[in-house]
Amino acid sequence: MKIGFIGTGVMGSAMIKNLLKADFAVTVYNRTKEHAQAVIAAGATWANSPAEVASQSDVVITMVGFPKDVKGVYFGSKGIFKRVHAGQVLVDMTTSSPKLAQQIFVEGKKRGVEVLDAPVSGGDVGAQNATLTVMVGGLESTYQKMQPVFSVVGQSITYFGAAGSGQNAKMANQIMIAGTMTGMSEMLVYAKAANLDLEQVIKTVDNGGGQNWSLANYGPRVLKGDYRPGFYAKHFLKDLKIALDVADEMELNLPATELAKRLYDRMVNGAGLGNESTDGLVNIYHSWREDD
Amino acid sequence: MKIGFIGTGVMGSAMIKNLLKADFAVTVYNRTKEHAQAVIAAGATWANSPAEVASQSDVVITMVGFPKDVKGVYFGSKGIFKRVHAGQVLVDMTTSSPKLAQQIFVEGKKRGVEVLDAPVSGGDVGAQNATLTVMVGGLESTYQKMQPVFSVVGQSITYFGAAGSGQNAKMANQIMIAGTMTGMSEMLVYAKAANLDLEQVIKTVDNGGGQNWSLANYGPRVLKGDYRPGFYAKHFLKDLKIALDVADEMELNLPATELAKRLYDRMVNGAGLGNESTDGLVNIYHSWREDD
Repeated sequence: MKIGFIGTGVMGSAMIKNLLKADFAVTVYNRTKEHAQAVIAAGATWANSPAEVASQSDVVITMVGFPKDVKGVYFGSKGIFKRVHAGQVLVDMTTSSPKLAQQIFVEGKKRGVEVLDAPVSGGDVGAQNATLTVMVGGLESTYQKMQPVFSVVGQSITYFGAAGSGQNAKMANQIMIAGTMTGMSEMLVYAKAANLDLEQVIKTVDNGGGQNWSLANYGPRVLKGDYRPGFYAKHFLKDLKIALDVADEMELNLPATELAKRLYDRMVNGAGLGNESTDGLVNIYHSWREDD
Repeated sequence: MKIGFIGTGVMGSAMIKNLLKADFAVTVYNRTKEHAQAVIAAGATWANSPAEVASQSDVVITMVGFPKDVKGVYFGSKGIFKRVHAGQVLVDMTTSSPKLAQQIFVEGKKRGVEVLDAPVSGGDVGAQNATLTVMVGGLESTYQKMQPVFSVVGQSITYFGAAGSGQNAKMANQIMIAGTMTGMSEMLVYAKAANLDLEQVIKTVDNGGGQNWSLANYGPRVLKGDYRPGFYAKHFLKDLKIALDVADEMELNLPATELAKRLYDRMVNGAGLGNESTDGLVNIYHSWREDD
């Protein structure tokens, strides 16, 4: 099975290396070629466009940044759909819009091509260690067919239903994380202002009903002032925007998620901290910064 | 060491039973005497007022509902301070205001009485199994002296500093939980509207970066429509109000916690669901109720 992989960022590169280790032949394309050097050195073959990748592959995986990038990679003038061939499978692993996932699925169907949306969670560490959680939407038969590929990059792989369902599951995941991140930030801001020992607070809270992954993993980093991504705040903001767009279409009012989006917007666009990790949210709280 | 215990609600009764099992003599008072029958049957002695409890005890523990109840129990006409004697220790384990904790401490000091604030987390199950987390404020020497008592009711006991610090640590804990509870509620509302399998969503999210205690413990309950407390929504609303009052005094703006308070206010005062568990928050979202 020849695999094409578009997008050699932090996540994509780590996944490509795992595919190469599992003896898949991998052809790659990336908008910025320099960022593909590491995977080329590891054995991947370069192609000059998404279309060229598609022409040479049985399976094309995409892992890019924003929905507009996904759109370009699939529907652009040198996009995947210019060179697809019947029987191929296309898998978008970018966290992107459920609606766009459905559009790609429909376009694929017209051309005899199977399409999955399969966003992941677990971050760069999960990508490196092949312990990603993969949330899959599309036909169940396509999902079954792709198991040998998914199992090389991830650990927990779940089929959620029709096209877009993988993206919706990922959105649900991000809505949960919006809660843990805002809660953690305000907890730390409060505890610091109250002159509590923050290490003790984290330890105590993480030992009871407030226990959560974000606190255990990001809490100690925040205390060190370490805001290196990890997971870019600008990407999390994108995810929350998608989630709220979908919620809006479903006529849902999600005020806590909406507020989290406004806070991340303040961090990314107000404070210019979009390239920091999501746990840098604490820095939009004045008292946190002032006393540091 | 003779212990007085004021407040024989769900939490207090479970703690009293553990103290009795550890062979402490316990004198109890409760506003509604019927609710003390179980601990009296288990070996506790009844007293007719907080003052009477105080007159007969070396250590007085209070575990009541709201800060106004704490105030009454300590400063009321039949309150503890009417009958304290030098050398006694008073421990308020109610989740209450840090400022009130400081007032009780100061009043105690005047009378040669040591005072701790020592709110707990871990809920009814933690109280029954003596696995509570205890957050202590006051003099460190008093905290050391009370270790034999705390270790009978709790598992993780942490000293946080001067009077009020235990309450502030508890507030930090509740701010964190405000995040996990609002995040979980909106995640479930979104996932349901998107026609995802909610059990699969909980399992997947709880397996990754969104993992948290609330989701693991309350998520499955919500799917069953089980909103029995657990932890009363009305008490959680009280906690959030205290936290935000303190934040206000510290000139902190905590918008996510403020929003959580408004949502719980809608649940408790708007929808009249204050006697349900905190995870019943999901019911203030129209789409959740409508489709049920």
